[in-house]
Amino acid sequence: MFARNCWYVAAQSSELSQAPLARTLLGEPVVLYRTQAGAAVALEDRCCHKRAPLHRGSVVGEMIRCGYHGFEFDSAGICVRIPGLDTIPDNARVCSYPVVERHRYIWIWMGDRSAADPALVPDFHTNDDAAWAYTGARLAVAADYMLVIENLLDLSHVGFIHANTIGSDDTSASIAWESTSDAVRGVRAAHDIETPPHNRRQGFGPRCDQQKIMTFLPCSHVTIDITTTERVPAGASQTAKGMHIMLLNSVTPETASSCHYFWSSTRDFAIDDPVVTEFFQSMTVRAFDEDRVMIEAQQRIIDRNPAAPTVTVLGDLGGVQARRRVAQRLLTETDAR
Amino acid sequence: MFARNCWYVAAQSSELSQAPLARTLLGEPVVLYRTQAGAAVALEDRCCHKRAPLHRGSVVGEMIRCGYHGFEFDSAGICVRIPGLDTIPDNARVCSYPVVERHRYIWIWMGDRSAADPALVPDFHTNDDAAWAYTGARLAVAADYMLVIENLLDLSHVGFIHANTIGSDDTSASIAWESTSDAVRGVRAAHDIETPPHNRRQGFGPRCDQQKIMTFLPCSHVTIDITTTERVPAGASQTAKGMHIMLLNSVTPETASSCHYFWSSTRDFAIDDPVVTEFFQSMTVRAFDEDRVMIEAQQRIIDRNPAAPTVTVLGDLGGVQARRRVAQRLLTETDAR
Amino acid sequence: MFARNCWYVAAQSSELSQAPLARTLLGEPVVLYRTQAGAAVALEDRCCHKRAPLHRGSVVGEMIRCGYHGFEFDSAGICVRIPGLDTIPDNARVCSYPVVERHRYIWIWMGDRSAADPALVPDFHTNDDAAWAYTGARLAVAADYMLVIENLLDLSHVGFIHANTIGSDDTSASIAWESTSDAVRGVRAAHDIETPPHNRRQGFGPRCDQQKIMTFLPCSHVTIDITTTERVPAGASQTAKGMHIMLLNSVTPETASSCHYFWSSTRDFAIDDPVVTEFFQSMTVRAFDEDRVMIEAQQRIIDRNPAAPTVTVLGDLGGVQARRRVAQRLLTETDAR
Repeated sequence: MFARNCWYVAAQSSELSQAPLARTLLGEPVVLYRTQAGAAVALEDRCCHKRAPLHRGSVVGEMIRCGYHGFEFDSAGICVRIPGLDTIPDNARVCSYPVVERHRYIWIWMGDRSAADPALVPDFHTNDDAAWAYTGARLAVAADYMLVIENLLDLSHVGFIHANTIGSDDTSASIAWESTSDAVRGVRAAHDIETPPHNRRQGFGPRCDQQKIMTFLPCSHVTIDITTTERVPAGASQTAKGMHIMLLNSVTPETASSCHYFWSSTRDFAIDDPVVTEFFQSMTVRAFDEDRVMIEAQQRIIDRNPAAPTVTVLGDLGGVQARRRVAQRLLTETDAR
Repeated sequence: MFARNCWYVAAQSSELSQAPLARTLLGEPVVLYRTQAGAAVALEDRCCHKRAPLHRGSVVGEMIRCGYHGFEFDSAGICVRIPGLDTIPDNARVCSYPVVERHRYIWIWMGDRSAADPALVPDFHTNDDAAWAYTGARLAVAADYMLVIENLLDLSHVGFIHANTIGSDDTSASIAWESTSDAVRGVRAAHDIETPPHNRRQGFGPRCDQQKIMTFLPCSHVTIDITTTERVPAGASQTAKGMHIMLLNSVTPETASSCHYFWSSTRDFAIDDPVVTEFFQSMTVRAFDEDRVMIEAQQRIIDRNPAAPTVTVLGDLGGVQARRRVAQRLLTETDAR
Repeated sequence: MFARNCWYVAAQSSELSQAPLARTLLGEPVVLYRTQAGAAVALEDRCCHKRAPLHRGSVVGEMIRCGYHGFEFDSAGICVRIPGLDTIPDNARVCSYPVVERHRYIWIWMGDRSAADPALVPDFHTNDDAAWAYTGARLAVAADYMLVIENLLDLSHVGFIHANTIGSDDTSASIAWESTSDAVRGVRAAHDIETPPHNRRQGFGPRCDQQKIMTFLPCSHVTIDITTTERVPAGASQTAKGMHIMLLNSVTPETASSCHYFWSSTRDFAIDDPVVTEFFQSMTVRAFDEDRVMIEAQQRIIDRNPAAPTVTVLGDLGGVQARRRVAQRLLTETDAR
């Protein structure tokens, strides 16, 4: 059971074409495609006739045609043609879901249609702002999406899982949490720590300061604003190098134990340098795959005994608050029915 | 739960030898083999001793010997030897099932033995009648067998699934249904339609008439009698080409969501022409695999929400009647217990 | 549910190193490793923090460090370090299990710690006694461990499953069973039988006598003491060849339907001959894999209908007694809680 009155990322814009795309979202089969005119559409991926998946059919103009017996549906999910029949039954329709195409993503609203306000789509402008460079991908993770959210909010893992990529031991970092009705925010500040491997490769010296601001936006998004500043010896002549990265993470439930993890790593420096872009793309792919392996192992252990007790420490507070925000949403939605 | 007082196809005759064959039928493990004398036998595939599958054993004369501890059973399922023991316990036996070998198939009766009348085996004589040519195969389908039965009774799918093989858009066809206590029969008549690709390849002109008579024989058989006649321009000198095909389909439940689909495509023309035989064999294999892919996708969607509603239209009436016939049989059998 | 107050084999000694080994034992995730000092340790394979498996971490001196957020645990399962925290919560600990390293194995006790007496470890001295030669391995079997125990206690299967390796038809053998509170013992004596293939390969003549003493030691061990003596024609001049083998079998439940089968075949002749050692190793690997295939097939049939009745004969009495011993233990343990 998932909160439904919120925008989830259904797909990257680049994934959509007139070739129907099957994707399970919030446990439900959804077919995504573009009409001939280019509009993004999301429908229930189950023909109302014999329950064949519509994604095995084809887009015909503004319609999608089922590949089994040829029923055709418009973008609102209404059946507009049944081969061999003159009259179409009133109940011949499938669910359609509001979508918004913005910031390189297709956003989907699977709850109460009347509440689907496009203004509620999170501000992910650095994904397609000309002043920023984009790298990103979609990653399938065989785990509850909240485990990925928790991973992103407790960055004390970075020095352990990512020791060979983006991490360094920052366990001396201070952590401060704050919550509002709309967000959960943590600030993790580390001073004079060993410079992470990837900053070293970009020419940083051996020590640095680093600040990470993690923001959870219910129900499925975590932005991480990272500033890394080289420490230069007192009295040295060189200027301290700096690096500013904005990570945008959207984790969409597929089932109770799997999710679609959409991430982007955007930067406001060297934005036209393809070598730097390729470096960030490949490094982040590698690092986030290190997370995936651990999170999937964690899920398998949880599955074996979901009741096993856990210990909560300071670094977990963001995750605890995030779970509360989602549970509260779910409760409100359930009460409304 | 399946109706049991009817003949199902257990195997093609050609599949049986002295090498035991394991097959799940109606959810139960069955071992099929021929004795040294050549008689077909079907037994419960579970030794009464330690429940090892008998199919891992071997046929020894008229007996089958378990491969684990050497217990031997006759064709009635009675244990006739236990190595090291002089006396055989009375309860040392496994289930045996009546079988009939006819029309290239091994037919099995898994219900009340006293009702297993060989005269009730459907008339599939075109499978081995000298006036007919045979092509056929067995296809494993990961779906409820009734989805295959429905597929065969609603041929409006042919123009969509099989557009590149045996199909053409015949959605102008008239359909008429009739039911008796023994069968459900539909007549699908299309006039002046585009000639299906495979008839084109056999030299037909661009337009044709086509009649298909679909007959459901409870609980698992659908015959389809297809007559295709070329349309010749008024006043043209040539004779209209014709083609008569009898499709015999038997779909045996393996589990609630998988089945063994035995099909044959028999014809009364060019019966000695190996090129035509090869053409029909390979085309039908290809076409029925198109069905399999769609039906398995349909089953997976049904599994995700078996309660999702459906819309029923005219073409579905045969399937609806067939389901009723089977449900009625099942009810009668249950009451009898 | 398994009896817990007994020593199970967790691993071969040779499997343990500072690289953590994940193994499911009695349904629970266990991590096994050696500390830097070489001591064998067995802990719950689930970090008390976020439930990541500890086997993905690393051994650091006498501690194991979780690979996710760096929590460290000592050999008693107590958390001794949390990165970034000065105070460690009292409940930060994982289960630790008593282990004994003896006779080439790591023995684990997963029940009441106070009862974990090393003197209760079975006497498997022939595994590492200088007067004996060892061959052995671990075999994963996808079946209830009691099916393997039964297999080992009813050796009437040898002439059927192993006809081409270690077996011969000894169905003329006499069998006698005796039970004590600590063990179930059977003696199987066969006179003047066809010599098994592997004895033939060691130079035996065509006929032999063979005695096998099978001993079940609750809850998971079966030793088999085999003496094979060549029969020489009356009045012949040669000395009868003999062969004495001690098979030690420990079958540790992994789940209710899978197990770890640790076996060794030890002998007191030709103990320094590598050719004989290689012969016994490869033959036994092959023979026990024949068992595995049959037992896994048996398990699959049982799973399909766990209630299917079975017939019990004389050869099964050892297995019946063994099951009773285990059930009695389980009952006693349950009552004690």
